[in-house]
Amino acid sequence: MKQSKKILVALVDRANYGRLRPLMREFKKNSFYKLQILCTGSMLLEKYGNSYKIVQKNGFKIDSKVFMELEGSNIVTMSTSFGLGIINYTNELNRLKPDFVLVIGDRYEALAIAIATSFANIPLIHLQGGETSGSIDESIRHAITKFADLHFPATDRAKRFIIKMGEFKNSVFNYGCPSSDEILKTKKSKLDFVNKIGIGATIDFKKKYILIILHSNTKEYKEQSQQIQNFLSFVKNNKIQTIWLWPNIDAGADTISKELRIFREKYNPNWIRFIKNLSPEEFQGVLSNASCAIGNSSSFVRDSAFYGVPVLLIGNRQSGRETAKNVTHLSFNKKKIEKKLLIEINKKYRPEYIYGKGGVSKKIAKKIKNFKFLKQKSLSYF
Amino acid sequence: MKQSKKILVALVDRANYGRLRPLMREFKKNSFYKLQILCTGSMLLEKYGNSYKIVQKNGFKIDSKVFMELEGSNIVTMSTSFGLGIINYTNELNRLKPDFVLVIGDRYEALAIAIATSFANIPLIHLQGGETSGSIDESIRHAITKFADLHFPATDRAKRFIIKMGEFKNSVFNYGCPSSDEILKTKKSKLDFVNKIGIGATIDFKKKYILIILHSNTKEYKEQSQQIQNFLSFVKNNKIQTIWLWPNIDAGADTISKELRIFREKYNPNWIRFIKNLSPEEFQGVLSNASCAIGNSSSFVRDSAFYGVPVLLIGNRQSGRETAKNVTHLSFNKKKIEKKLLIEINKKYRPEYIYGKGGVSKKIAKKIKNFKFLKQKSLSYF
Amino acid sequence: MKQSKKILVALVDRANYGRLRPLMREFKKNSFYKLQILCTGSMLLEKYGNSYKIVQKNGFKIDSKVFMELEGSNIVTMSTSFGLGIINYTNELNRLKPDFVLVIGDRYEALAIAIATSFANIPLIHLQGGETSGSIDESIRHAITKFADLHFPATDRAKRFIIKMGEFKNSVFNYGCPSSDEILKTKKSKLDFVNKIGIGATIDFKKKYILIILHSNTKEYKEQSQQIQNFLSFVKNNKIQTIWLWPNIDAGADTISKELRIFREKYNPNWIRFIKNLSPEEFQGVLSNASCAIGNSSSFVRDSAFYGVPVLLIGNRQSGRETAKNVTHLSFNKKKIEKKLLIEINKKYRPEYIYGKGGVSKKIAKKIKNFKFLKQKSLSYF
Amino acid sequence: MKQSKKILVALVDRANYGRLRPLMREFKKNSFYKLQILCTGSMLLEKYGNSYKIVQKNGFKIDSKVFMELEGSNIVTMSTSFGLGIINYTNELNRLKPDFVLVIGDRYEALAIAIATSFANIPLIHLQGGETSGSIDESIRHAITKFADLHFPATDRAKRFIIKMGEFKNSVFNYGCPSSDEILKTKKSKLDFVNKIGIGATIDFKKKYILIILHSNTKEYKEQSQQIQNFLSFVKNNKIQTIWLWPNIDAGADTISKELRIFREKYNPNWIRFIKNLSPEEFQGVLSNASCAIGNSSSFVRDSAFYGVPVLLIGNRQSGRETAKNVTHLSFNKKKIEKKLLIEINKKYRPEYIYGKGGVSKKIAKKIKNFKFLKQKSLSYF
Repeated sequence: MKQSKKILVALVDRANYGRLRPLMREFKKNSFYKLQILCTGSMLLEKYGNSYKIVQKNGFKIDSKVFMELEGSNIVTMSTSFGLGIINYTNELNRLKPDFVLVIGDRYEALAIAIATSFANIPLIHLQGGETSGSIDESIRHAITKFADLHFPATDRAKRFIIKMGEFKNSVFNYGCPSSDEILKTKKSKLDFVNKIGIGATIDFKKKYILIILHSNTKEYKEQSQQIQNFLSFVKNNKIQTIWLWPNIDAGADTISKELRIFREKYNPNWIRFIKNLSPEEFQGVLSNASCAIGNSSSFVRDSAFYGVPVLLIGNRQSGRETAKNVTHLSFNKKKIEKKLLIEINKKYRPEYIYGKGGVSKKIAKKIKNFKFLKQKSLSYF
Repeated sequence: MKQSKKILVALVDRANYGRLRPLMREFKKNSFYKLQILCTGSMLLEKYGNSYKIVQKNGFKIDSKVFMELEGSNIVTMSTSFGLGIINYTNELNRLKPDFVLVIGDRYEALAIAIATSFANIPLIHLQGGETSGSIDESIRHAITKFADLHFPATDRAKRFIIKMGEFKNSVFNYGCPSSDEILKTKKSKLDFVNKIGIGATIDFKKKYILIILHSNTKEYKEQSQQIQNFLSFVKNNKIQTIWLWPNIDAGADTISKELRIFREKYNPNWIRFIKNLSPEEFQGVLSNASCAIGNSSSFVRDSAFYGVPVLLIGNRQSGRETAKNVTHLSFNKKKIEKKLLIEINKKYRPEYIYGKGGVSKKIAKKIKNFKFLKQKSLSYF
Repeated sequence: MKQSKKILVALVDRANYGRLRPLMREFKKNSFYKLQILCTGSMLLEKYGNSYKIVQKNGFKIDSKVFMELEGSNIVTMSTSFGLGIINYTNELNRLKPDFVLVIGDRYEALAIAIATSFANIPLIHLQGGETSGSIDESIRHAITKFADLHFPATDRAKRFIIKMGEFKNSVFNYGCPSSDEILKTKKSKLDFVNKIGIGATIDFKKKYILIILHSNTKEYKEQSQQIQNFLSFVKNNKIQTIWLWPNIDAGADTISKELRIFREKYNPNWIRFIKNLSPEEFQGVLSNASCAIGNSSSFVRDSAFYGVPVLLIGNRQSGRETAKNVTHLSFNKKKIEKKLLIEINKKYRPEYIYGKGGVSKKIAKKIKNFKFLKQKSLSYF
Repeated sequence: MKQSKKILVALVDRANYGRLRPLMREFKKNSFYKLQILCTGSMLLEKYGNSYKIVQKNGFKIDSKVFMELEGSNIVTMSTSFGLGIINYTNELNRLKPDFVLVIGDRYEALAIAIATSFANIPLIHLQGGETSGSIDESIRHAITKFADLHFPATDRAKRFIIKMGEFKNSVFNYGCPSSDEILKTKKSKLDFVNKIGIGATIDFKKKYILIILHSNTKEYKEQSQQIQNFLSFVKNNKIQTIWLWPNIDAGADTISKELRIFREKYNPNWIRFIKNLSPEEFQGVLSNASCAIGNSSSFVRDSAFYGVPVLLIGNRQSGRETAKNVTHLSFNKKKIEKKLLIEINKKYRPEYIYGKGGVSKKIAKKIKNFKFLKQKSLSYF
């Protein structure tokens, strides 16, 4: 019988947790694993809703909290935060000495953990590699792939791309996204809690509502201010009730937040409710019941497909992603957004399962258990 | 007429400089460019021969010196140094505001600069991508590729591999290694200077001598001590006069240095001369005149091919590299090294030009000038 | 004739600038000095009003901007910010190579600069040493004194205390606070600008108004939440129109901000205007015209004395400071604050000049010019 | 009955351990305490003899190892190391959550720990405050005093100075240096082990020998190279057998090491044995049996007094220290050193107990246990 192994799961933002919770639960109940949890990035910040508290409320023990985000959210502070993260993650890995480290996605905090892990000769497991998008995320995601020893992409195309990039076939497995384990079990839930958190309009859930999430695209850092102003000129005239989730911590986030605050002061948009943070199931509830989702969150690409909720995907941040039929790509153009919204808000699409069909966590946990990790990575091209 | 552009060349160790000097000279005399030089890593350290002084002696102005290497040379300090490097490079890039940054090879300092560059939305140029090797260098090299906007690999295979990894064909150019510009012009030089630097045996250059360089393989960090002891058991019995160049600063370097010092104390090996650092032309002189080179330096893979000097390439650090006929791959096995040395030391190979034929720097400088950098990277697989 | 000398003035928050501006102007016009300005800390942050922009608007060139504040504002992030500051300041001092560095007050950023300066063997000049207060500021201030080579305290008692601490008499000079140079020239200014910045109530400047500033006391970090709630229970019932300036970036600031936001959501206090940042002259205008100032800002101790504005000084943050007759010390006790406010708001005190009588900057600039700095500090007790 | 309390003892170099071992043993056997040990600085470095291993061999468990020293040993790297130390110590204190932290002496690593401790609102205990010396140590020592809550100076004068600096009398206790607990019990030990470690001459312990330790004075950073050359011109002609202990890690240490290596290469001084590190009892053995000690180590000031060993104290690094009659102060002057050595080497002084009479550790442990720490420091001058 194999001895129990320490697996460290790194959570760097609320979306990470939403996707990894089913897998964390699997690790927790599977006797082969000893689960270690590292929370970092915006998960620890009041400003972003202190989402580590949800992790604790769900019964998980957090083994390490790493503060590493600088104030400023510009490209200097993002890069400095990355460096500071490396220093702190190095210490934490050296202390916790996990047998494996698991990261998901394409955030800079995840790359920092990936590098610290690989430098420490600890096997690295990566979920959601092989996808394509805009922003610095695009490079970060593929760089993580080049450090990872075992890959769990979430789509067939992503799997194909990882293999094309030179990873060995027998280290790349597409079982879908673990979030599908929970999403597909989610029942219609009451949404009243929304009006108890955040600030602004009281949402009437018997009527149609829009969900907006607008993140920064670091590669369009300078255009950001203009883009958000264009977007807000759309929002100003659109009086459909709206739930707006604050952006995450990328370079440029403060620009968005600032424009948003100016907008609120100026126009007092009493049809919008602003919310900092939601638990995974709360978020799925709000998304699945929305009449339309607008913005550039990757959840609009992924999770929305399960529900067939119409999505207006704005700008280049998610360009290159695989999307289901419910997603319409648009630029930051007020007129086009307005026009398309009128059409889409009245539609409902058929669910599609490009990002998984459930039963994912068990398969991933089993594969890690039986995988033979190599000491040295190499390209498969020979 | 195009306006002059600031190009920052990052030098992280003595080998970097040896390869980039011809290109730096080209940038310096080409009016399109304003050359900025950043020296960091072991280049600034007494212990590694203060090689930044050679850069200055060659008439270059250093615009930025960044100290970032921790004492300890273990996997914790390597990773911490990396993080500290990011913090400092971020500040320096923000201050110098180059239009392009150029890095070479696969060291962690180079990756740190690459990430800081890419996070700052500055175009990144990478030389020597697409090669394959052992150690953490393997992952680092390909991760740099995923951040780089323009690639100058040094071999056709490397070019092919970069393109396979998803980089666009029209961003990858193989003109060879710029070091070939100088190497192929090098005349037989006097080597007497060797006996004026370093310590130990006086080398008689009328007789055969061996050149040894043994670096650390971070992925075999734990086996290191055993490997070097095996190697030293070979050295102990081999009494052919030898020039030994100290290892660079990777995790594990102190282990090698320590074993070396113990060995010196114990056996007083009066047939070996130990040297910390050589200028590029000094190094080429010593290498080209050696009867055999033994160890795992990448210069034994690359530069030796130009001279046809027999090489015994030990261990996995360079496994996967393209080598000419002069290179024999061996494990850390005393008997096999002894046996093979007896044969190879009496051979001389025909020069091969797999790593370039000269005229490289001009081509690279011209290409950069005319290249249209894109704001957003993406995979070429669509 | 003496050669011109580079003096670096470090500005770490808006209050620093308010006090140092007259001196900076003196350095700028005095040919002996070449002024260098380093802006750091909350001066660079949108959230704190980007006060570096006022420095630029006033015609100063900023030579160095150092981001170093982590998000979180707890005792872990404050300490980490301090360490990161040291790293960055070290680099900036090494680059700018000032002949002297001047810091003011008792903030952790100032201590970080003081240490980096002293480690670099650059003479350190300190203003406002020798005062006493609560919070971690108390230790920080005296630690700076132990690194400083030349001291310009702002009161006679402070001078006496510095000398008692073992500094040589001939290195300690009380000319008063340079802010007095400007304050005493300030004419009654229009305050309409207030209603164009910040958010909340429109202030009627023909009527009485209160000014509130409430900072964190890091040594009472755990009691903070309770203290601010007590304070807000006072604010809730007090309906006199109020200008509230957001707290600075100490550990605990986010707790205050959070309670404040909850309070705003819950009670919609339409008699309060919230403001992030003011230029020095704007601040003096608002303070000097207030009917009462309430909170724990050091400006309530210092600047208020010049105007005789009644002050309710709450809690221990400023305990130990020298105050004029206009200041009443109170604990975080709703009833006592309410009661005392009723009395004080109708008073007006006679100006007192314990913190200076003007003409300060010229004297400081002259003294620095002629001071003979020693290489080695030592205690005066022998 | 009081509950057991966690006391973290910070060890930053071999000398720290030599002085604190008796106290650590007391904490270990005293049920009131739960001892935590943090090792950092040069204790973890091969180059400085890996002295943390002696701690482990003595039966202590090390709870935290913090790497934070940069390569380079110049004033830039010293300051950067300090900043990096703060970042790492902050994390370790947050993890280990000690009830008290104890530091000793005047090194920058100790100040970094002191600041991180004080920022974290953990009570700080300082040993060996109040002394006076040269180098940056002078400012560091007094700055630590301004953060410390409880002081255990080692002499009456030091106690008096701490109180004069504004610390409350009832927080300052002179019980002597804990090293005296062991030193006074030390029996004449065999010294043969010396010839089994280090390199160079075999010492004949039946004959007279000299002990040399020469550290850097950071405040004379630029004069260093000249000073050491002067000193070596003395050493060159002095052929009395010598044990030389390598310098510690201050800015300038590499300059000393470099000059020493050049000297060794050039003059092959076969009457000197070079040693990196000794356990506390080994060091006391070597010091107590020396016929003369030469250099600027603080152990020559302190421990030598117990033995009456003649000391030539060179330069300004220890100027201001309290010394017994056995110590002669000299500058870096070859002639004067030679002349004085001839006289002193034949003397033997009477032991003096200015740095303690034993029984110290028990008293310190008892006092800490019963001390009432205050939340807020303040000056005693009111």
